Amino acid sequence: MKCKENSRMVLCVLKRRLLRSSGCAFMGRLQRQSRGCVYSSIHGFSHEEIREKLQAFPGGSVDLLKHDSGIAVLTINNPTRMNAFSGSMMVDLKERVSQLENWSEGKGLIVHGAAETFCSGSDLNAVRAISNPQDGMKMCMFMQDALTRLLRLPLISVALVEGRALGGGAELTTACDFRLMTSGSVIQFVHKHMGLVPGWGGAARLVRIVGSQKALKLLGGALKVDPELGLDIGLADEVLEADQGAATALQQAENWLSRYTKGPVPVIHAVKKVVLAGRELPLSEALRTEKEVFGTVWGAPANLQALASKSKHK
Amino acid sequence: MKCKENSRMVLCVLKRRLLRSSGCAFMGRLQRQSRGCVYSSIHGFSHEEIREKLQAFPGGSVDLLKHDSGIAVLTINNPTRMNAFSGSMMVDLKERVSQLENWSEGKGLIVHGAAETFCSGSDLNAVRAISNPQDGMKMCMFMQDALTRLLRLPLISVALVEGRALGGGAELTTACDFRLMTSGSVIQFVHKHMGLVPGWGGAARLVRIVGSQKALKLLGGALKVDPELGLDIGLADEVLEADQGAATALQQAENWLSRYTKGPVPVIHAVKKVVLAGRELPLSEALRTEKEVFGTVWGAPANLQALASKSKHK
Amino acid sequence: MKCKENSRMVLCVLKRRLLRSSGCAFMGRLQRQSRGCVYSSIHGFSHEEIREKLQAFPGGSVDLLKHDSGIAVLTINNPTRMNAFSGSMMVDLKERVSQLENWSEGKGLIVHGAAETFCSGSDLNAVRAISNPQDGMKMCMFMQDALTRLLRLPLISVALVEGRALGGGAELTTACDFRLMTSGSVIQFVHKHMGLVPGWGGAARLVRIVGSQKALKLLGGALKVDPELGLDIGLADEVLEADQGAATALQQAENWLSRYTKGPVPVIHAVKKVVLAGRELPLSEALRTEKEVFGTVWGAPANLQALASKSKHK
Repeated sequence: MKCKENSRMVLCVLKRRLLRSSGCAFMGRLQRQSRGCVYSSIHGFSHEEIREKLQAFPGGSVDLLKHDSGIAVLTINNPTRMNAFSGSMMVDLKERVSQLENWSEGKGLIVHGAAETFCSGSDLNAVRAISNPQDGMKMCMFMQDALTRLLRLPLISVALVEGRALGGGAELTTACDFRLMTSGSVIQFVHKHMGLVPGWGGAARLVRIVGSQKALKLLGGALKVDPELGLDIGLADEVLEADQGAATALQQAENWLSRYTKGPVPVIHAVKKVVLAGRELPLSEALRTEKEVFGTVWGAPANLQALASKSKHK
Repeated sequence: MKCKENSRMVLCVLKRRLLRSSGCAFMGRLQRQSRGCVYSSIHGFSHEEIREKLQAFPGGSVDLLKHDSGIAVLTINNPTRMNAFSGSMMVDLKERVSQLENWSEGKGLIVHGAAETFCSGSDLNAVRAISNPQDGMKMCMFMQDALTRLLRLPLISVALVEGRALGGGAELTTACDFRLMTSGSVIQFVHKHMGLVPGWGGAARLVRIVGSQKALKLLGGALKVDPELGLDIGLADEVLEADQGAATALQQAENWLSRYTKGPVPVIHAVKKVVLAGRELPLSEALRTEKEVFGTVWGAPANLQALASKSKHK
Repeated sequence: MKCKENSRMVLCVLKRRLLRSSGCAFMGRLQRQSRGCVYSSIHGFSHEEIREKLQAFPGGSVDLLKHDSGIAVLTINNPTRMNAFSGSMMVDLKERVSQLENWSEGKGLIVHGAAETFCSGSDLNAVRAISNPQDGMKMCMFMQDALTRLLRLPLISVALVEGRALGGGAELTTACDFRLMTSGSVIQFVHKHMGLVPGWGGAARLVRIVGSQKALKLLGGALKVDPELGLDIGLADEVLEADQGAATALQQAENWLSRYTKGPVPVIHAVKKVVLAGRELPLSEALRTEKEVFGTVWGAPANLQALASKSKHK
């Protein structure tokens, strides 16, 4: 009896293993990646329970605008509190990410804050009310889940940093593929000054962006990163200078991003997916995913059209 | 009955696991690494079947010249098509890699293209004929296998880029340890312009060389990388300036490489192996491999000779 | 019968797997990390046996001074042999690391050598006596274990390089979070000149610090890294210029380090732990660890005090 049960469990493990190493693991893996919840009930994590707790701390909003260009704008909107996250904004964020996961025409995403500043982390009012470690960790799980899914969207994403990105706001910038800073802006992991460390996944992602030595400096020293330092250490990908013309920072960011989102939707998704696989998976698994993603564009309309136009020119 | 079968499968899994965590896993691991096929029949991959399909598209060749110095030169040779890969050249490539795996006197490898240009990817004639996704993925598996084995050779390898390295040609450069660019040369992942992404493992390897942000820019923007940009982002390791004297680019590349291949064969192999382990394995596995590789040179002739000469000088 | 045994083994594997993926895996993981022996009896590794062999080659010492500031100084002390490691010094090193693991008030560590030079690797006298591969690998396991535990201490650690760091000495510098070089100092992986490669984990760690291409150059060419090159390739984090005033290099290093160790002990430990997790673990595991570490500081005294002071200022 026991043997049978174990065997079933074992079979299940082996099946998963075989699946993983076979070509068809791809669908599962990418689905897990794009919808990729980091936590499930096995971690004692109940989305519903936490969502309810967070909703008890309302204020502000997270807004989503999808443009026909295939570029969406996500706005962290709580200007009276420097766009700090209330509990309800955390719930908002996750819903917006779900919408983006289902946006089949999407190619790019700009994350920014309202009123020309980025985000100052979590709202101290909400924070004080959930000050026990158990609830703190549940809030982290909720936000890690949202931000990991944001990072794994098949879109090319950019954090546009105007003003200040502090604490959780600094962590949010690391959940995008790129970071653009306007002159005068600052990214600062101020956690240490609050007796804290990142908990929304900001440390894990920061290490992947700037390396562990620079991450240790930024967190250990709570260093202010201005655009110059940002470029130097690779935290910023570009500095947007104030435009003499009419272009707002948001327009400049759209221009910047559109260089990389030009082209058919499936090709942009495929580009993001192979880079994501290269970033997150061991080499042999990344190779397998790359091959499978290749299979989605090879012989597809955009490819056939390009081939046809090449023959004409020859 | 079923239980017995499962138990056998399980035993096999456990055995592999135990082996892996024991010292003697080393032989297996390194062998898998140096002969390291990424795909096997478990992935629905039949080398023979694909080889036959590819042979149906002949043209050009991939040539190998092994020098007494321990440095070999691999030439991608199809100059009328900018050294694009025909099907038979893919088969050629894999055979040359097998020969290099068995070259016990080898220390270094230079990969370059005929007629002063590198390689323009796959030949459109072959490409058009295998335009269904299933065959496309099989071609990827074949090339990923060849290029992964190229990367894992116990030799120190250099891609010498003259002229253009486009598409699959750009991917090929990432399968070497180093990239040297001559002035005026270009590496460009043009896949997006063909409605494609890399499929020969170029994305996975590019992320490991330049990081995921730069890889996303290069693929998403199909950016032209000239020598200056190459050096700046770390895709190029050196720029070879046109020599006023008689030295060809190939001679310059040999000079450059010989700084790192000087010394006894087993020591050079050991250097490559510990770096390879550091690059591909989690820390604890890399440490174990490093210790095992150390065991192959410690107390070996080159080491004893160096020790003896040290005592004399004292 | 056999089935039952297998089932038991399987259950055990599954249990470990479940534990690992649950929140409570954290304690185990971090414990393993901070006390993290890389080898155990399963690898045919007996600490006692090796310790005894090493003790047979005495000379010099490794000294530890813990300051009230929370910064300790570890001195490699064998000046007549350029601070080369005798066998007994290897044993000393491991004992000092154990003491640091148990130092609950510690925040930072400086590793340096006596008499204004760093360390020249292992003492040739000891080396010659244990020249068979089996014993060589055992010495590697012993040192890898000590250095991995050094790297995983919850302290922020700095190697202060004056004079020369050669061979194993160069490897030792990579077991710290940061490297400071005084002007005129040199880090050189001279192993190739001895017919060797690193075996104390230096190759695996070097690849993680400077990337695999630069690591291959440093090892393959046995290149001399002076402060300028060190900064350029990221092996050095800062160059300490000779101070016109009274400050010794050690005092300068303490000043440098204190920027990152300012603050309460549990917060500094937490900073190091999240960066360590980000550096060593796959993303999903690093996220889980980050959340757990966050739970140790959230609502803790330092955090509550910071929150209270924030309210007052508002």
